[in-house]
Amino acid sequence: MPAASASPPDIAQRTRIFVREHVFPVEREIVVAGRHMDDVLRVELQTAARAAGVFGPLSPVAYGGLGLDTRAQASVLEAAGTSLIGPIAVGASAPDDGNIHLLAHLATAPQAERYLAPLARGEVRSSIAMAEPSPGAGSDPAMLATVAEKVAGGWKINGAKHFTTGADGAAFTICIAATPGGTTMFLVDQDNPGLKVGRRMPTLDHSAPGGHCEVTFSDCFVPDDAVLGEVGRGLEYAQVRLAPSRLTFCMNWLGLATRAHAMSAERIVNRTAFGIPVADHGMAQAHVADNEIDIVAARALVYSTATVIDEQGSVSGAARHAASITKTFVSEAVWRVLDRAVQLYGGLGVCEDELVARFLVEARAFRIYEGPSEVLRWSIARRVLRAYR
Amino acid sequence: MPAASASPPDIAQRTRIFVREHVFPVEREIVVAGRHMDDVLRVELQTAARAAGVFGPLSPVAYGGLGLDTRAQASVLEAAGTSLIGPIAVGASAPDDGNIHLLAHLATAPQAERYLAPLARGEVRSSIAMAEPSPGAGSDPAMLATVAEKVAGGWKINGAKHFTTGADGAAFTICIAATPGGTTMFLVDQDNPGLKVGRRMPTLDHSAPGGHCEVTFSDCFVPDDAVLGEVGRGLEYAQVRLAPSRLTFCMNWLGLATRAHAMSAERIVNRTAFGIPVADHGMAQAHVADNEIDIVAARALVYSTATVIDEQGSVSGAARHAASITKTFVSEAVWRVLDRAVQLYGGLGVCEDELVARFLVEARAFRIYEGPSEVLRWSIARRVLRAYR
Amino acid sequence: MPAASASPPDIAQRTRIFVREHVFPVEREIVVAGRHMDDVLRVELQTAARAAGVFGPLSPVAYGGLGLDTRAQASVLEAAGTSLIGPIAVGASAPDDGNIHLLAHLATAPQAERYLAPLARGEVRSSIAMAEPSPGAGSDPAMLATVAEKVAGGWKINGAKHFTTGADGAAFTICIAATPGGTTMFLVDQDNPGLKVGRRMPTLDHSAPGGHCEVTFSDCFVPDDAVLGEVGRGLEYAQVRLAPSRLTFCMNWLGLATRAHAMSAERIVNRTAFGIPVADHGMAQAHVADNEIDIVAARALVYSTATVIDEQGSVSGAARHAASITKTFVSEAVWRVLDRAVQLYGGLGVCEDELVARFLVEARAFRIYEGPSEVLRWSIARRVLRAYR
Amino acid sequence: MPAASASPPDIAQRTRIFVREHVFPVEREIVVAGRHMDDVLRVELQTAARAAGVFGPLSPVAYGGLGLDTRAQASVLEAAGTSLIGPIAVGASAPDDGNIHLLAHLATAPQAERYLAPLARGEVRSSIAMAEPSPGAGSDPAMLATVAEKVAGGWKINGAKHFTTGADGAAFTICIAATPGGTTMFLVDQDNPGLKVGRRMPTLDHSAPGGHCEVTFSDCFVPDDAVLGEVGRGLEYAQVRLAPSRLTFCMNWLGLATRAHAMSAERIVNRTAFGIPVADHGMAQAHVADNEIDIVAARALVYSTATVIDEQGSVSGAARHAASITKTFVSEAVWRVLDRAVQLYGGLGVCEDELVARFLVEARAFRIYEGPSEVLRWSIARRVLRAYR
Repeated sequence: MPAASASPPDIAQRTRIFVREHVFPVEREIVVAGRHMDDVLRVELQTAARAAGVFGPLSPVAYGGLGLDTRAQASVLEAAGTSLIGPIAVGASAPDDGNIHLLAHLATAPQAERYLAPLARGEVRSSIAMAEPSPGAGSDPAMLATVAEKVAGGWKINGAKHFTTGADGAAFTICIAATPGGTTMFLVDQDNPGLKVGRRMPTLDHSAPGGHCEVTFSDCFVPDDAVLGEVGRGLEYAQVRLAPSRLTFCMNWLGLATRAHAMSAERIVNRTAFGIPVADHGMAQAHVADNEIDIVAARALVYSTATVIDEQGSVSGAARHAASITKTFVSEAVWRVLDRAVQLYGGLGVCEDELVARFLVEARAFRIYEGPSEVLRWSIARRVLRAYR
Repeated sequence: MPAASASPPDIAQRTRIFVREHVFPVEREIVVAGRHMDDVLRVELQTAARAAGVFGPLSPVAYGGLGLDTRAQASVLEAAGTSLIGPIAVGASAPDDGNIHLLAHLATAPQAERYLAPLARGEVRSSIAMAEPSPGAGSDPAMLATVAEKVAGGWKINGAKHFTTGADGAAFTICIAATPGGTTMFLVDQDNPGLKVGRRMPTLDHSAPGGHCEVTFSDCFVPDDAVLGEVGRGLEYAQVRLAPSRLTFCMNWLGLATRAHAMSAERIVNRTAFGIPVADHGMAQAHVADNEIDIVAARALVYSTATVIDEQGSVSGAARHAASITKTFVSEAVWRVLDRAVQLYGGLGVCEDELVARFLVEARAFRIYEGPSEVLRWSIARRVLRAYR
Repeated sequence: MPAASASPPDIAQRTRIFVREHVFPVEREIVVAGRHMDDVLRVELQTAARAAGVFGPLSPVAYGGLGLDTRAQASVLEAAGTSLIGPIAVGASAPDDGNIHLLAHLATAPQAERYLAPLARGEVRSSIAMAEPSPGAGSDPAMLATVAEKVAGGWKINGAKHFTTGADGAAFTICIAATPGGTTMFLVDQDNPGLKVGRRMPTLDHSAPGGHCEVTFSDCFVPDDAVLGEVGRGLEYAQVRLAPSRLTFCMNWLGLATRAHAMSAERIVNRTAFGIPVADHGMAQAHVADNEIDIVAARALVYSTATVIDEQGSVSGAARHAASITKTFVSEAVWRVLDRAVQLYGGLGVCEDELVARFLVEARAFRIYEGPSEVLRWSIARRVLRAYR
Repeated sequence: MPAASASPPDIAQRTRIFVREHVFPVEREIVVAGRHMDDVLRVELQTAARAAGVFGPLSPVAYGGLGLDTRAQASVLEAAGTSLIGPIAVGASAPDDGNIHLLAHLATAPQAERYLAPLARGEVRSSIAMAEPSPGAGSDPAMLATVAEKVAGGWKINGAKHFTTGADGAAFTICIAATPGGTTMFLVDQDNPGLKVGRRMPTLDHSAPGGHCEVTFSDCFVPDDAVLGEVGRGLEYAQVRLAPSRLTFCMNWLGLATRAHAMSAERIVNRTAFGIPVADHGMAQAHVADNEIDIVAARALVYSTATVIDEQGSVSGAARHAASITKTFVSEAVWRVLDRAVQLYGGLGVCEDELVARFLVEARAFRIYEGPSEVLRWSIARRVLRAYR
């Protein structure tokens, strides 16, 4: 069924059904029975998503995607996010989502053909190599230690990266490196002999195919046409990617929060303690209400920021400010919701027989990656205060 | 200037300017210099508002109002709310806002002529007599102790009310009383000899003209045509009023929060401690960022609920649920913002030389009236849980 | 009855009874009926306290006080604090408590005779002039703008102070002023022609006799023997006063929190909503439990810090660190308790017919004076981090 | 070295050193390198603890333990808790701690000889079978579904238990079962053919030797002398165990919080972002201060409750109330501290290369087991409110 024929609400509804019917069973096998999330499974899920007309919500229509604007993405990605692996299944998970956005913005025609097209179609995965081990760049991009040196016909990259999501098994990596007078983005094929994917780091979350890897660039030569956009503008381009990427995460995690909310509500209705259903105890009801409030507020904020992005562009100051606010609020609200859901489950809430236990652990990193809450609050405050200086 | 010629953003901007230029100076006289907020002052402010084309944002166009839909109200009432007395100045303060809404919904033509028209035009004030001293009705309407008895040609009302906002000086009161088989609303002229306005209660807030009064109905006779809507449907009608009224409060108080946020940001930029501006201390920045997040989230939630009201009607279950969520979140967010603003002011924050001290005290009741947070959370939870029972 | 004959638990119990029987009725007249807290009333209450054997818990035995150590003070001052004016009644309210401590530490024999003795006996009140209007010293003592210049036979003080608690009606003021090479404390008689007590500032709290005043020193001459301690060591002496003074506040306010906790618990037991006592609603129970937890934790922390002060001295680093932690925690815990108590009262909670409304407003300043939470957190963190630098 | 020769502060200090030198390296192997925590390792650690004179802080001196009273335990168990496996190493981990306390209280001489002696000496481990899968007993002991039926010469137990900590590899289990007219505790040898230890449940925490197991009793015959205490008084005995057991957990987890606090403080001192050490950023300092406040308050509360237990006995109402308050506060404070420590670590905080990531996950269950916060708050509130009914 051609995507163009479906309205965003239809796609959201269809996505919700697809995830429930096709993805939930697989997720349970992964979390509870230990099945491995690998690329075989990913392709299987994505094929099913394509068949259901829900693949590629963020990908341009020209590449077979659904080409939704940010507002339309909100409900679709929330629906996808109701499973930990729903975003992967529909081709809207990090870092591919942001990379698609970035490539659509910056790639030359040959680059688009070679990198964007197969990525948007879900034929390959990608990664982005930004964060570096200490004393390199973490939250502060000015500390970038990976360097690209101009050589004949191209560039030679040297440096170490970590937390490179999806690097294991990706087709290519966007590497950010210091170049004279600035910072530059490079498209590096994963089979480049100068790029070495090291171990998957033992992070608390396990659901990303390709893990979060250590990656080393050792005299890694790339030709001139591997430069993405212009030399020296890498940090600026990172901003292009940032607001949409933050918002995608918010949408996805909000979906997971709604799932945990529903699961915990259902559980307390069907469980008795002290002679009445747990759902009739006021303190349990307080948790349910707080979950509902957090979710509805988060959703309103996501939609409001999506509107800013659609109307003013993702690199506008307004969009970036709104995305910082939204990422901070939503990452913390999702955490609270998952934490209360665990509490409502009682003992089983900390047992991986129940998905909520795993959800909580997987979600912890969301308050750190793409900007820790503290760095975002700092940035939000400075923007507010600037008006009064 | 005909209101119809102005778009909602224009009206919001115009309201913001009007409040800043005409209302702020008066507010300062009231809070700092002890000027009394009485009806003379109210009329003076409302005349100025009318001249500025910003009077009556909630009133029907037919009665000289601006006739804004709920979404358009959001930014206009937030602008009005930047002063404690801004909502009164533009004719959008409780309980008149809700009474206008209720009368527009229910009044017969003669009732509209007699009560709605002068109220919408700001010629008179009104009150609504709902809450009762213990053991009467507080949060639980089933405990209503005021009774209306059918007598020849009308009804005889007996009972005691309290927290009757604006009763002192109002032209009429909508009284809710138990009638056989239900609850009924009555329009009672304030000069009815059976209605006695007692003392203004010594509440923490001082900015409502007419105060919060004790009111007694003693063999108070009203004719049959004083019934508003139908006999026995009073509680249902209270629901008509409820969601919009809650949202109006949210918009107004959100405005005050933005004011305190701006004032405190400005103050810390211009104040030095430990060798640097207070605005450069990280913990002050954290307060600023949290204020910004609370405000932006509250605004998004208000707008989202306004959309539900406009699209599904204010008595729909969705609107009532959304309004409960929004009232809970916004009343608590506003409180947090004002509290942080006080803290950012330091010692002067608790001195009424600075408005933030008064703002905080005035706002405390907002977490209680129109539904205490606890009762709203209970109601939100039950609605969520109902789906799983 | 000689104080020495009573054990601390006895004194605490006796204080609790004294406050309930003699002070509560007066407090109600002040808060609800508008009676003025003046020195006539203060003397009346203190006379009754002396008769009940509970006057002067902080005053040295040599001056007729009870001479309690800090641990023993904890329960006695908590008992005194169950009324807003209980600390005044027993002679243990700010700033006299800290001034007694300071004078006992520093005064020469003639100074003790002239200033400490009548103060400890409750014959006079005192004040301490520290805080200054911007750009003078607030939280940051380095910004001190009041200056004392050496002149023949004494010093000439010039500068403006504000928030000088109790200045109106005090017998003397301890003034902190910059002197060459440091800071010095001076004892200034209130009738010194160079000292002018200005207006009482319109602060949110109203229960301090003498208010919080603006005070000006204009060519205020004091003789050499007006120097308290040594020239140049004023800031150091301020530290002597600080930890005990912070702890006294904690004890007093904790008492008020226990009172509000008890009052709100009693109220919800006797009030019905939705067919059952409010006390049977889970969300009300959550507030009660949180109040109990906050109070018990605050009390444990106060006692633990009192132990540090008694064992290591009030100027030890350990005592100052512990007092900073305790003041931050207790001031915030008390605020939460009072806020929940208001919420449990429902509508009447924001009406000064009920004392909890006034308690909340009075308490707001406690999170700011004697070190705002932010400044204390900064200081706590630096001390922790110092160990790792 | 005879324990009796060491004062509690000495033992605490010695324990701190022992854990740092002998346990930290093993912990790192377990968490980071995946070494298995089994009984071989346990015995190795406990042998070292005995050699260091720090084994058995809770065990009676008669059985080779240190026989500390509750107050003395506070600092010792906090020191032990600085490692996840410290409590095991010194023989003070759940459920053995509570079982030792229970047996010391209830066991007959032969029972003591057979069960308490080897347990107190660390020769064996034990478990307690209380919680049951739905619809059996979770937080509500009245729902107990495991039944012991009187048969000739003994009892026949039938029922299913879960979350039976340490069951895999224990020497015996204390089983709580319904008996006519009450509830009874039985000592069941692990090799009893009627007791079957099922799978270790996949809980978030991994550090308990013996895991949290499913256990089934199928016509499990025990002789009459397997009854612990008296028939029918099982729930009452559970109370004997409860307050001390809750407090032990608090002490242990508080130790872990201090460790994470120290680790994160050290890390931010040595890490730079935006041109200055992370430790100089105000928002990081706020986390450090909040951690310090939470820890110091938790410690004061633990000590205060230990005093109540020592002075009034562990089954007194005061002790049980204090333990409920303390468990609620400390479990939540520890969680906040660990969560902030993760945040201070940045990206590495969610990577198990750093222990804080594992600490956070391990700690989640503490807010649920031994009484979820909600059930404890309910119980605290009812006790407070009872005084006013």
